[in-house]
Parts: sequence; C-alpha cells; structure tokens
Amino acid sequence: MLLQRVARTIGKYQMLRQGDVAGVAVSGGADSVCLAGVLRALAGQLGFRLHILHLNHGLRGAESDGDAAFVASLAEEWGLPWTIQRAELDTTHGNLEQEARRARQRFFAEATRTLGLSRVATGHTLSDQAETVLFRLVRGSGPGGLAGILPVTAEGLIRPLLEVERAEVRQWLGSQGLWWREDSSNLDLRFRRNVLRQRILPDLEEHVRAGSGRALARLASIAASEEDYWRESVEDAFRRSITGENPYIFNTIELRRLHPALIRRVLRLGLERTAGSLRRFTQEHVERLLRLVLQADGEGQAVLPGVTARRSFEWLRLAPPELERAADWAIGLPEPGRASAGPVTLEVVEDATVCPPPADGAECLYNVGRDWLDFDRLSFPLILRNLHAGDTYQPVGRDRPVKLKHLMQSERVPSWNRPDWPMIVSKGRIVWARRFGAAAWAAAGPGTRRVLRVGEVEGIRG
Amino acid sequence: MLLQRVARTIGKYQMLRQGDVAGVAVSGGADSVCLAGVLRALAGQLGFRLHILHLNHGLRGAESDGDAAFVASLAEEWGLPWTIQRAELDTTHGNLEQEARRARQRFFAEATRTLGLSRVATGHTLSDQAETVLFRLVRGSGPGGLAGILPVTAEGLIRPLLEVERAEVRQWLGSQGLWWREDSSNLDLRFRRNVLRQRILPDLEEHVRAGSGRALARLASIAASEEDYWRESVEDAFRRSITGENPYIFNTIELRRLHPALIRRVLRLGLERTAGSLRRFTQEHVERLLRLVLQADGEGQAVLPGVTARRSFEWLRLAPPELERAADWAIGLPEPGRASAGPVTLEVVEDATVCPPPADGAECLYNVGRDWLDFDRLSFPLILRNLHAGDTYQPVGRDRPVKLKHLMQSERVPSWNRPDWPMIVSKGRIVWARRFGAAAWAAAGPGTRRVLRVGEVEGIRG
Repeated sequence: MLLQRVARTIGKYQMLRQGDVAGVAVSGGADSVCLAGVLRALAGQLGFRLHILHLNHGLRGAESDGDAAFVASLAEEWGLPWTIQRAELDTTHGNLEQEARRARQRFFAEATRTLGLSRVATGHTLSDQAETVLFRLVRGSGPGGLAGILPVTAEGLIRPLLEVERAEVRQWLGSQGLWWREDSSNLDLRFRRNVLRQRILPDLEEHVRAGSGRALARLASIAASEEDYWRESVEDAFRRSITGENPYIFNTIELRRLHPALIRRVLRLGLERTAGSLRRFTQEHVERLLRLVLQADGEGQAVLPGVTARRSFEWLRLAPPELERAADWAIGLPEPGRASAGPVTLEVVEDATVCPPPADGAECLYNVGRDWLDFDRLSFPLILRNLHAGDTYQPVGRDRPVKLKHLMQSERVPSWNRPDWPMIVSKGRIVWARRFGAAAWAAAGPGTRRVLRVGEVEGIRG
Repeated sequence: MLLQRVARTIGKYQMLRQGDVAGVAVSGGADSVCLAGVLRALAGQLGFRLHILHLNHGLRGAESDGDAAFVASLAEEWGLPWTIQRAELDTTHGNLEQEARRARQRFFAEATRTLGLSRVATGHTLSDQAETVLFRLVRGSGPGGLAGILPVTAEGLIRPLLEVERAEVRQWLGSQGLWWREDSSNLDLRFRRNVLRQRILPDLEEHVRAGSGRALARLASIAASEEDYWRESVEDAFRRSITGENPYIFNTIELRRLHPALIRRVLRLGLERTAGSLRRFTQEHVERLLRLVLQADGEGQAVLPGVTARRSFEWLRLAPPELERAADWAIGLPEPGRASAGPVTLEVVEDATVCPPPADGAECLYNVGRDWLDFDRLSFPLILRNLHAGDTYQPVGRDRPVKLKHLMQSERVPSWNRPDWPMIVSKGRIVWARRFGAAAWAAAGPGTRRVLRVGEVEGIRG
C-alpha cells in the first residue's frame, strides 16, 4: 500500500526513470531509513538503482559518528553502495543551520557529479510539508511562499515520501522490523519545528479540523502549481518594466500600470534575482517595495536583508548593499590622452578643427561642441574625479554658478548615478562635467586657437 | 493613534465618504463596542453619521435581552439613533450558525434599505482575520480561500477594525472607560474558534514567530488582491470552456488546454455559480473535479455538497442534485397534433406530400425524411414517453434491433441528456426516437399513402 503510493508519487512527478541511479540521502532517522527501504523495494519494479549518501556534520560527536556507522551497516546489509563524507562546518559564524544546509548541498552536488547520479532523494514527508507551510505562513512568506517543499527541485532533489504522513512512516518501519536513530539535536529552528510538530499541528487535527496536515500539504502543491502559472506573466512583466540590469532598475511608471498583485510578484522576482534567493524575505519586505513603487515621484529608500532598494524620480533600483558604498576617486592627466578612474574612462584630445578665428577675416560659424574646452585656459595636470558634495560650477548658458546637485535634479539623474559622476578640474575649478559640459569660463569659443575635446569612452562608461 | 489607524483603513479601502450614513452592527461585545466608539470619534472629522444596529437572536434568553438593552442604552448615552430587531430563528433545522448568519444578512439588508444607510460596519478585527485564514487553511480552502474577511464586501459590509488587533481593542476600551458584555454562547464553530484563539495562535506567537497573527492577516489581504487579479482570466477561461449554462457544461478538451492552476480556478467558479457560494467546498472537492477533467474520455461522477458533477464523453456537467433525479413521463396522442410531456414538445402532423406511389405509374423520387412514419402502420393513441432502461428498436438502415443505449453511446449523447430522450410507441413497439428517427418497419417509404411527420418544437426542447 505505502509502496504503491510512493510509486505513484514517483510517477506523477516523473522523479525517476528506468536506468536511473538515485542517490538516497540517509541521516539515519526514521524518514530517511523508510525512504531508503521503500526505494529499495521499488527499485526492481521501476528499474532504477540506488546509492546511499550520508554527510557526517560531526556536530554531536560520538552520536554523529554512530549515525554514520549505522547508515554504513544498513547499506552493507542491503547490499547497496554507499558514500559517507565528513563535513567540516565553520561553527564560528552564527548560522549553523545555514552552514549545514550548504554543506549538504555541496555534498549532493559533488556526489551527483562524481557518482553519475540522476537525482538525489531526500526523506521529506507530508508532515514536514505541513509544518513548512504553516511555518512559512506565520513567517509572512506571502502566497508565493506557500509552495513549500517541492517534489522535484531545479537542483535535482526529489522527495518520494512527500505524500506520506510521518505516522505512516513509523508504521511501515515497524511492519518491516526496521530500526532508526533519533536525533538529539535541538537547534533553534528545530525547536520551533518541534512546537509545530508536537503541539500546534496535533491541536489543529484534534480540536479544529481532522486532516489539517493534509490540507496544508495539498495547499502547498496547489500553490506550487499557481506559482508555475504565474511564472510566465511575471517574467514578462519583469522584462517589460526594467530599464537596467545588474543592478536591476525598474521603471515605476511601467510597474504602476500593472495590477498590484502582479507588481508584488515582479518585485519578489527582483528580490530573488538580486539576493540569489527569497530565503531572507517576507511579504512585509515586498510591501515596503510596493510602497516605494506607488509613492508619488520622488526619493525613497528601503534597506532589506542583503538588498538596498532606492527610489529616485520614476526609477526603483534594487542592489546588493556593497554596491551602495561609493568611494571617491581621482586621477591626474599630465597631458591630453586617455584616463580611467572609478568606473569612468575619458579621452581628452587636442583638436584644432575649429574654424579660424574672426581675426583672419574669413566668414565662419562656430559650431562648438558642449564638451569643447579652450586649451589655453587650462592648467595641466587636469584632475579627473567624481562628484563631491557641494560641487558648483557655471556651465555655458547659465548666468551664475549652480550646484551640480541642482543640475542633476532638474535633469532627473537618479540618485545612484550621482556619486560616480565624472568631472574635470583645472587648478581647483571645475571645467567640465558629464552631460552639463564645459564651464562657461573655460569653454571653446570665438578666439579659441586650440580645442580640448572631452569624450567618454563608450562601453566602459558606468 | 488607534483612531488615526482606523481612519487610514477607512480611507485606504474607501469604506465611507463624506455625507454617508453608516450602520454599525453592535452585538455588545468588546469589538463592536470599540467599533461604534471609534467611528463615533471619527464621525465629525470624516463627515459621516452613524446608526446603531442590533439583532437580538434571542438564543440565550435573558442574556440576549440584556445585550439588547445594553446596546440601546449605549446608543442613547452617545446620542446615536438605533434600531434593534428581534430575529425569529428556525432552530429545528440543524445549522444554527448558518441560520443566525442569514438572519443578520437579512436584517442588514433591510436596515440599509429602510434607513437609507450607505454601508454597514461590523467589528471584525485583525485577530478575527488571522483566525479565519488559519481556519480556512486547515479546512483546505486552497489559495483562493485565503482572502478571508474582506474589508469591503459586495453586499456593502465594511470592516474598519480589520487592521487592529484584539488586544488593542481591549486597551482602547480601557483607556476610554468603556464596558462591554461577554458572550457566553459556545456553538461548535465558536468552540473551534476558541481553540485557535486561545491556544494555537498564542503558541504560534510565543514559540514559533512573533507577529504570526499579523502575517496571516497580511496574507489575507494579498490573497484578496491576487484573487482580484485572477478574476478576469478565470472569467474569460470559464466563458470559453462552457458549452451550456444552467446547468453548466464544460468542454473538457478546452479545459485541458489551460494550465492546471487555471483549470482549478475555472472549476471553482463553476462550483460557486452552481451552488451559489463556495462555503461548503474545499480544495479536495476541486481536486476531484480536476481528476474528472483530466481523465481520459469516458464516464465519471463526483457527488459534492449541493453539486453533482458528471463527466460524459468530453463534457463535464455541474448541476444541483435535484436536477439529477429523472422521473419517467408519458402522454397519449389520440390523434395527430401537438403534445408535451416532461421537457419535450412534439408535433405529429399528417402529411400527404409524398409523391404518388409507383402504382400510379409516374416517375417519382422518394425523398423521405428520417422522421417520416407510415400513418397506416400506426395505431392511435400513440404514446410519447421518455427512454426506459433496455429500450430497443431497429431504425432505418440497421439490419437488426439495437439498444437505444448503444445508439446513444456511438452518437456521443452525454449521459445527462439520456433520461429525458423522447420516443413514440405504437402498440408497445417503439416507432420513433429523437435523432435516430423512424423504426424500419414503421417508416414512410414506397407505398406509403399517408405520412405522419414527427418534429420537435424548438425553443421548448430540453
């Protein structure tokens, strides 16, 4: 009965095919021993082979070693090949659970590669699923987070017991005369899990609704299906609303045309792509981004775990925090030529192609470029540097000096582009700035004999 | 602080506008007394007026009357108009909660009409929302059910306290020196509610995640927004996949072209429209319909609360159970003319337009219709009746008698159309059946002098 149900789950989600070699992650606990036993019983019928995998985290000393020995002897008894690896966990940094999870992922990936495994099966049950869904619910993961434990992951993990309840696992193990080892560890996450497992879910089953666990697990599978349905429209809306990648910059005018439910999903995808995963985000984070999108034109910021969101004019930028730290940079130009500093490369070229000055008597139009300087008014070395707070100059066409900050404001330069804004300084005075061009006093004009053209080298430009 | 938050909620969901008269449903309990007090404090600032409403269910005798008196004196003290009505609940039928809810709905609708109310406010809080969401989750309502308590309903109910926690309600009442009455009733639903309220949600808050209640409430508001986003595509897919209404008949070939997540939503809408509400359905019911849709061509049935689903060939029909009971019907036709029985109306017309028989020597083509009988072979009264089990006859073109059931099978007549299938019987023998036409022995042909044409009257046809 249990065997046939697991076989159905395997078939329904196309977990394994004939000829596959499946890794089986066995900790030594009840669920994973059951998983290995069930897969072993189904292997002939479904035509796959097994390889037992065990990672010894070594966190519980002799107990951990005992688990490893137990798994090895089980594999030997069953005549199955096995690989046991010892993980060296870095226990000095806080999050032990995260470390352990990463070590397992590395181990599975490596085993898959070296042993030629098709998939790696883990012992997650319907009961784990129910706990996960409930945990995510109260954590505030939002509807997208309800998908819970996936039957098959992108990394090639499969969960053949995902439609089997924990009680059925124990029952089956008993019926087979199989033993397992209990894990004595009580990490924080495990403690909270235990409250869900030993108090809350039983209370729900007994006093509120029998079948609560199954209802939660079913919700997960439907949520996963809805998530899949959303994917295409979200990806599409995401593409249409970003104006820049790495970091992602959204056009909030485009976003605001969408239904708020779709905006939320697009923002969630932005968080996932910026941070690499949604693990650290809750729906409240998404709501904060949504408020930044919906607010009237202007500035705003939200610092989320691993992502800093900034709103400027109609744009919203999501970036890892390290991209936020702007350092000043500068370089001297002893003579015309090319110079790079920060994310900017400039070319400063001497040029005499201005038509002859009026003194020569010839009819002549001064088609002077915005970035043309009068060579003879400049003092080398020129300095190429980024914008400093308070920078002020008087560009051509203005009747008095203005703050660069105000120029950028009126030109709608997003706040994140300002710190690296390049300018050229001659003897302590700004003679040129990107987009705003030459300072009035240093600009090429009637009487200019030698022109210095400033140009940004495209492709490297920040 | 609380006042301003409620004002924000009112504004965010456009619950009330200047000049509105809001009914306030006050049971006398803490939440509704708080609601009335808060709305009274905001009335001047937001420019609306109030009318206190109380329905005395009379279920708890003197205690109920005490509640009514309490509400009346509160309204008097506050100088607010009030209406108290006594409900006559039919307590002989099982579901008291449902009866009470319907009585309240009637009372609110009537009060809205007679008192010219814009909206009726009820005292649901964020804590009620969290309990509702959790209850629906474990009940198996699926993602669509997570919307929970809506801030504004189609019937004009509003929930201004929906972003306020129960503890804040008590605190505010205390700060205002306001009293309330505790409800001693302990209906089944209330008992289960109490487990959620007094054990499960506190456990979640304390041991699993602080802010669990708020996370669940936030989920509800996001789910409502996603629900709204789905509406259009679901309605559209619904329209495109039904081939009949009243009852709804889906083309499963069309349905199977859709993403499973969308099929589920379409089926859910079908259940809602057939039963009038989704109240009695869980996601498991939707899954059973989904299996009927996905199964290979064939027959199948699912009996759900208030809806019977039947699959036949490529169609899936959702109908209220009363439509399932097929009664036999019959009527005698003493002479040619029109006759109605069951959902069928036939016209049996004598006609001599067949070209003269060969005996007359003229060249003649017999363009005989499928529904033309030879008058002289029939014995009046003819009987018009529905299909009976085992009915057999030999239509023109067959070389032996066949069961009507097999004819219908090969003509892909859906099972629900069969019980009312009309036939005409002459002296105990079937001489005609819908679509399959005249029996070979009674059909008009060479030598027929008088024709009897059978025709169904369109527009009345079932």
